[in-house]
Amino acid sequence: MSRPTVRKLAPYVPGKTIEEVQRVLGLERIIKLASNENPLGSSPKAMAALRHIDRLHLYLDDAYPELRERLAAPYGLHASNVVLGHGSNELVNIACETLLEAGDEAVMATPSFSLYKLAAVLQGAAVIEVPLREGVHDLDAMLEAVTERTKLLFICDPNNPTGTALPPDAWRSFLARVPERVTVLVDQAYREYMGAGTFEAADIVRERQNTIVLRTMSKVYGLASLRFGYGFADVELAGWLNRVRLPFNISRPAALGAAGALDDEEFVAMSLASNLAGKAFMYKQIETLGLQAYPTEANFYAVSVPVSATRAYEDLLARGIIVRSGDALGMPGRLRITIGSPEENAALADALEQLLPAWKAAA
Amino acid sequence: MSRPTVRKLAPYVPGKTIEEVQRVLGLERIIKLASNENPLGSSPKAMAALRHIDRLHLYLDDAYPELRERLAAPYGLHASNVVLGHGSNELVNIACETLLEAGDEAVMATPSFSLYKLAAVLQGAAVIEVPLREGVHDLDAMLEAVTERTKLLFICDPNNPTGTALPPDAWRSFLARVPERVTVLVDQAYREYMGAGTFEAADIVRERQNTIVLRTMSKVYGLASLRFGYGFADVELAGWLNRVRLPFNISRPAALGAAGALDDEEFVAMSLASNLAGKAFMYKQIETLGLQAYPTEANFYAVSVPVSATRAYEDLLARGIIVRSGDALGMPGRLRITIGSPEENAALADALEQLLPAWKAAA
Repeated sequence: MSRPTVRKLAPYVPGKTIEEVQRVLGLERIIKLASNENPLGSSPKAMAALRHIDRLHLYLDDAYPELRERLAAPYGLHASNVVLGHGSNELVNIACETLLEAGDEAVMATPSFSLYKLAAVLQGAAVIEVPLREGVHDLDAMLEAVTERTKLLFICDPNNPTGTALPPDAWRSFLARVPERVTVLVDQAYREYMGAGTFEAADIVRERQNTIVLRTMSKVYGLASLRFGYGFADVELAGWLNRVRLPFNISRPAALGAAGALDDEEFVAMSLASNLAGKAFMYKQIETLGLQAYPTEANFYAVSVPVSATRAYEDLLARGIIVRSGDALGMPGRLRITIGSPEENAALADALEQLLPAWKAAA
Repeated sequence: MSRPTVRKLAPYVPGKTIEEVQRVLGLERIIKLASNENPLGSSPKAMAALRHIDRLHLYLDDAYPELRERLAAPYGLHASNVVLGHGSNELVNIACETLLEAGDEAVMATPSFSLYKLAAVLQGAAVIEVPLREGVHDLDAMLEAVTERTKLLFICDPNNPTGTALPPDAWRSFLARVPERVTVLVDQAYREYMGAGTFEAADIVRERQNTIVLRTMSKVYGLASLRFGYGFADVELAGWLNRVRLPFNISRPAALGAAGALDDEEFVAMSLASNLAGKAFMYKQIETLGLQAYPTEANFYAVSVPVSATRAYEDLLARGIIVRSGDALGMPGRLRITIGSPEENAALADALEQLLPAWKAAA
């Protein structure tokens, strides 16, 4: 009752929810640092816009003209360069539906965001996974993996689950060498957390036809369960993505909230400041504890542990702290941990300090 | 920059929006009877639930256990029989992704809901379209169209765009004859509008493994732009559909609103009463005007016009009334018109009466 390709799909495993852990462990206070959610909550301007939800009985204009124009303008792009998605993960799927079929190949880094592989395999394409180097995309090796059959090359920047970003020089050299016929999909779900002076991937869209750049409002705008993502591509490619996109894939609440959030520079600034402070605190703790984390440009980090990631994950879970085990993310020996509020970060640092002697003894 | 199959896709053409027609025609008062929206608005209990939107920064539990259990219970089914969708149209797409690949065939009626063909073609499948008889699915001919390659058979009941429903006897005979290996997808977006004593398609799921029944909250609950649909299937098939489904495909607003709407029997009853009254009024007008409409079990009807559907559509549009031209829906010589509020129906009836002499003269 499913086609052969579907039977090969590994299920997507999300981070545990707070309710689930409360139920199973009987703990009252749970700290969730597993899904890279914004510890400050949601953009107040998005929430204010959502207080005026109405006309839910009417379909939206499926062209979403104003919203697309507003998203495009800061990059010198136009509405016709924009495709909207139910989160950027829907756009990953739409890109694969548009570009890949049986016999095609897609190149991605490993570990990277697991949905790329799921969406490409669903299309019957072969996925070539190129190991990271020190937690960073190995662009040279990825270019070497490109064959005549390669249709799509995924770059996750900053990379999930390592948090690392590509240096601007690496970008330029890569773009000069990747064949024009290969679509480069740059997933920037964590773009806003990157430092100033970062290479602006959205600019590539004006210069290189065969590029898709994805963004989301799930993270820095704190709208994970509102579901709104967007992508930039040149007009022709954006046109195909919009053709494949299901009609009405943007709900009215998502459109309303997204329009509100776009005005909320203050909340973005606060979120970035909170993230920077949390990062500085945690990286100091990590150093003090003698652990190692890849340099992150996101709102999470991948930290080494001296036991198996699963053991470390379970010990933290027993203390009411949910993180992600690297064993489930192709990153053995590491945990992926969200940068939380000061209280959450301090509780995590305490737990790590308390657990570390037993972990070292077990190692 | 897209795979060959995608280049064959016809774009989905939604009904015109009120704003679009206001802008183009410069008319202030627009009556939209084009998208089968609920003239009473949205379920007040859904709207009340949506006043409490919070925690949008947190992802939902992607298993949606309570909501699935509640949807399943009235039919003696369980959460494991349920798959949730961003509208039932996403579930049509998920079903095609799960079941179809190049070389497969899907059988559907024509005219029927256009998305079936789009979603099946996107999978590389061939679509066999079997003409309706008097606006009703020709189940005998559809069964004859089934070959060794047939994986999926679509039944739209009530059928969009004709509004007709299958008689219970036809259902029973059909189910006895359709091969077990063929998945039957019953799309019941307009289920709630059907009369009492209707054959309960959801019951088939308990008896026939290879069946999917789709529902939506877009219509009778008035939540078209909230985007919430759901499907029933046996546990194994529902498992595959859930495997293919993108994680987090249900937004928190949609989950909240859907849970609220499920309690709103009063709004459903009012919507059904309004629809019945509007239907009685319009069918009387249609008879008086000497036109013909298929018997409808939905909140719209397919009415004949004595000129081309496009001409009739444009003449109504010029008077600020948006309907759907049958020429765009595979139903030449007819219009698809939503049953609106009493004022909207009366305005439409007036317009038809005024336009009819010129249409007859032109015929």
